[in-house]
Amino acid sequence: MNTLDSIHHLAIQVEDIGRAVTWYQSQFKCEVKYQDGTWALLHFNNIDLALVIPNQHPPHIAISTDQAEQFGPLKTHRDGTRSVYIQDSEGNYVECMDPKSII
Amino acid sequence: MNTLDSIHHLAIQVEDIGRAVTWYQSQFKCEVKYQDGTWALLHFNNIDLALVIPNQHPPHIAISTDQAEQFGPLKTHRDGTRSVYIQDSEGNYVECMDPKSII
Repeated sequence: MNTLDSIHHLAIQVEDIGRAVTWYQSQFKCEVKYQDGTWALLHFNNIDLALVIPNQHPPHIAISTDQAEQFGPLKTHRDGTRSVYIQDSEGNYVECMDPKSII
Repeated sequence: MNTLDSIHHLAIQVEDIGRAVTWYQSQFKCEVKYQDGTWALLHFNNIDLALVIPNQHPPHIAISTDQAEQFGPLKTHRDGTRSVYIQDSEGNYVECMDPKSII
């Protein structure tokens, strides 16, 4: 049991998923875990980097926390993870994920 | 030796460093590694989250890569790390860090 929470992934916006995936793969050692026309998930050693197109998801950080349910009703996503989006004190989006839903 | 690169930290912009640090500490299990009026560094289990005020640093992800020098001349920062800022294919800022400069 870790005493600190983990950041499960972070998501940044890109205009062109394919172009961005090609760029990251050509510049860094990372693996493509998922890719379609609207988003992609790149796996790095310690964290996943999501690339999303505008209007699908806001840029965000996703934190795995035992307290996820305290932030609001959790929504189950296509990949089975359960989470709720909130905003921090400054307006940045934070996805609070239930660790038990992460494979 | 890891086969994949690591994301050393990510930086998001906040209006008020103190308010943001208080918020993150009250909501999640993380530690404050550094804090002043212009930025703060929060340590999570697997990664550090930097909070920066606008006009000091752009929001960015920092990737530790053996190839950092190939992206341009490295600048030495106050904490001893050496890196160069570039932009990805979509305009997002990426800080390429020399792993040897990271304690």
